[in-house]
Amino acid sequence: MSPGALFTDLYELTMAQGYHRYQMNPRVVFDMFFRRNPFGGGFTVCAGIEPLMDALASFTFAADDIDYLRSLDMFDAGFLDYLSAFRFAGDVYAVGEGTVVFPGAPMIRVHANLIEAQLIEGLLLNTVNFQTLIATKTARVFLASNRGRILEFGLRRAQGIDGALSATRAAFIGGAAATSNTLAGKRFGIPVSGTMAHSWVMAFDSERDAFEKYADLYPDKTILLVDTYDTLRSGIKNAAEVGRALAERGKTLGVRLDSGDIQYLSHAIRRYLDEHGLRDATIAVSNELNEEIIHALVADGCPIDFWGVGTNLVTGGSDSALTGVYKLAAKERDGKMVPTMKISDNPDKTTDPGVKQVHRIYDRGGSPIADVIGFDEETIETGTRATFYHPAIDYRHFSIVPDGEIRPLLEPVMKSGRVCADLPSIHQIQERAKREIDSLDPTYTRLINPHRYKVSITERLKDVKAEMIAGFIDG
Amino acid sequence: MSPGALFTDLYELTMAQGYHRYQMNPRVVFDMFFRRNPFGGGFTVCAGIEPLMDALASFTFAADDIDYLRSLDMFDAGFLDYLSAFRFAGDVYAVGEGTVVFPGAPMIRVHANLIEAQLIEGLLLNTVNFQTLIATKTARVFLASNRGRILEFGLRRAQGIDGALSATRAAFIGGAAATSNTLAGKRFGIPVSGTMAHSWVMAFDSERDAFEKYADLYPDKTILLVDTYDTLRSGIKNAAEVGRALAERGKTLGVRLDSGDIQYLSHAIRRYLDEHGLRDATIAVSNELNEEIIHALVADGCPIDFWGVGTNLVTGGSDSALTGVYKLAAKERDGKMVPTMKISDNPDKTTDPGVKQVHRIYDRGGSPIADVIGFDEETIETGTRATFYHPAIDYRHFSIVPDGEIRPLLEPVMKSGRVCADLPSIHQIQERAKREIDSLDPTYTRLINPHRYKVSITERLKDVKAEMIAGFIDG
Repeated sequence: MSPGALFTDLYELTMAQGYHRYQMNPRVVFDMFFRRNPFGGGFTVCAGIEPLMDALASFTFAADDIDYLRSLDMFDAGFLDYLSAFRFAGDVYAVGEGTVVFPGAPMIRVHANLIEAQLIEGLLLNTVNFQTLIATKTARVFLASNRGRILEFGLRRAQGIDGALSATRAAFIGGAAATSNTLAGKRFGIPVSGTMAHSWVMAFDSERDAFEKYADLYPDKTILLVDTYDTLRSGIKNAAEVGRALAERGKTLGVRLDSGDIQYLSHAIRRYLDEHGLRDATIAVSNELNEEIIHALVADGCPIDFWGVGTNLVTGGSDSALTGVYKLAAKERDGKMVPTMKISDNPDKTTDPGVKQVHRIYDRGGSPIADVIGFDEETIETGTRATFYHPAIDYRHFSIVPDGEIRPLLEPVMKSGRVCADLPSIHQIQERAKREIDSLDPTYTRLINPHRYKVSITERLKDVKAEMIAGFIDG
Repeated sequence: MSPGALFTDLYELTMAQGYHRYQMNPRVVFDMFFRRNPFGGGFTVCAGIEPLMDALASFTFAADDIDYLRSLDMFDAGFLDYLSAFRFAGDVYAVGEGTVVFPGAPMIRVHANLIEAQLIEGLLLNTVNFQTLIATKTARVFLASNRGRILEFGLRRAQGIDGALSATRAAFIGGAAATSNTLAGKRFGIPVSGTMAHSWVMAFDSERDAFEKYADLYPDKTILLVDTYDTLRSGIKNAAEVGRALAERGKTLGVRLDSGDIQYLSHAIRRYLDEHGLRDATIAVSNELNEEIIHALVADGCPIDFWGVGTNLVTGGSDSALTGVYKLAAKERDGKMVPTMKISDNPDKTTDPGVKQVHRIYDRGGSPIADVIGFDEETIETGTRATFYHPAIDYRHFSIVPDGEIRPLLEPVMKSGRVCADLPSIHQIQERAKREIDSLDPTYTRLINPHRYKVSITERLKDVKAEMIAGFIDG
């Protein structure tokens, strides 16, 4: 999915023409970050980095794009020539895909000229906002299921073709075991899953016949949908008969439930299967699940082996967008990078100036305890006492002698428009996300009312910020 | 955006192989419909028909799709050969894009063989569910703004690339005046809009300089963002100065507000502009708007000319999916189409059997009063008394002598896999949607707690349903 450079808000182009006309195209640094964890949660899982790299590599204007822009009668020939030759040649630093991230700390840092940096804004935010939203949602669902097997079934409810494909990729990163989306399986090399709909059962003269025919065809992957007619009086009985025949051939039955009271029915089904010698048989459930429902079912001890989740996984449900933003942090002047910041009446919307790095401080057990944002050239060292500050409220600070690892999170991924890092495979990204989530204190991963993870700034960054605010107020 | 035939849930393929193997590929009829209006509203605007036609026309398996399916080790050579030659050759009937539709009444009817009809399920639902959701959301925003000018600004918050492009198309259908998404403007031929971000203002040494330079460059499209520093003490004053210079050249100023209290500031800005001889100047606002906020601002008499709406418009906000479904309605047996239905414990989930048409009954003033679902061969005539029934509750019925127009809603759009209708342009679709919404009694378009529009069934359909339910219970 590389939409090219016309996938940008028109105002980026009107501004770019201005910068081009007035010869205002300095080197700049932009930060991408978000201001709150989605879903009322305590963490966020970064996703979308590799797709962003792919899209940036083909971020150019085709000849008919230029024709279209000319037809708008807003752009002069010189600027259109500039766009014809345009390609993104900036540097990009990013946290590794699958890394757990927190509000306020940059996930991506872009070094480029002003026009380049602005033109990619929409593409960057579109890609990273959405995939990060879905990876985070899936991680919540995965945790709610007690790290169970999540099947992503969202194709038909996703927001467009790419809404489905991107969501599938991000859901896998967040912990999904497989997807129903066959094209996504091919494109991303992730497991696909799917057996039958109610229409299969209805296509045969009897439920029993439908089940038998399916088991004949797919003896190694027989998951029978038991709720087409009557789950307990018909579906599970027919399924168990087929399951016993499979067992004689050394094969295992699976059943799926897609309606009714999952709590009651999953227990009843388990009991029936166990009483009929099918202790190995698995139970899958689906039907408008989300993390709250799954959490309640797990808390009730429901014997569920697979969770099929659709709408809520691929759209985020009630929280349909990560509100990530992309803000100017530094601008070259007289050959030097000068910090810039947006000063807002609302202190939470005031940005952190300068070229910055995010340092994650771990305890000796390897669990993250705080992220500290400082200037890129600053170092934070294990064994050395330091004081870190709340990004907006000066009197909130803490002093610490870090005794565990300290890891910088932003790493170079693109240099002069070319990928310069070995990007991990999607399986490695999923593994990383699982490790990252496991390393967090459970108070941060609690579904509701989680503990707030500390994101602080260094003393120097605090001082520069204070100076700039004072200068702005006085000036 | 034509993803090809691999954009399907895997279970469609496992089932299809079964139908192929067991030579069960009869002619069937499927209905697509939804069970509730999104956003708690009283109506829904159909969208996505033309994109669906495009995608169906290229719904084939490429050679590497077949290679991928072979690699899954689930499909035999005969079936893979069948898929290699597969193309969708069915007939499709649909309501016109932009038509107002209601829960329970089919929007799309597909006649095809069973395998064809099943394989397209995911693509059909993905396309129509999402675009219909967004067209409906935009229609609500449009109505809330008192039929004002809505600018769709959602690219950066949309769910993936196509999430943005499809949303832009659907938002235009629902009443948006323009989009910020340049690629969507090119692709769909709809107006694009955009001027400046805060970063433009910050790139210059002063706000005044930034405004002047912009007005020099775009004298015919000068919309100045006035809230970068201080809206009332700086932004509006500098904008008004530039506005007066523009006025001397016969040009009109626009200002945009993207933060702060819109109610208070829009009044204050209007007063300032009027007092400074800029009565023609327009005011645009943005910042996490939705229909409720817009409705409140309009009710307060806020002097706002343009509404920029992003996240909520392109994702649906808290209601992120239309839960449209696609159900088997009839199946050929011994050369005849036999009605089929899904009978559920929940009467609302019981489907209407048979090959059906939806008749919209209008009053003499041209306002729709009810949709009646009947068998395709049934007619409903103006001037003839008829009794229509609630789809699930027999004792709720009404008797009427229709005295206005009666219009069948489902029209042929595809015959044997080829488009067979003159599909309207996107501008015509938008016009139709506006006319349709205007024709509705305002009790149906109320944002909150709307009147419920009547969707009923004919006596014959009611009787066939009752017979089939009785047969199922007895059998």
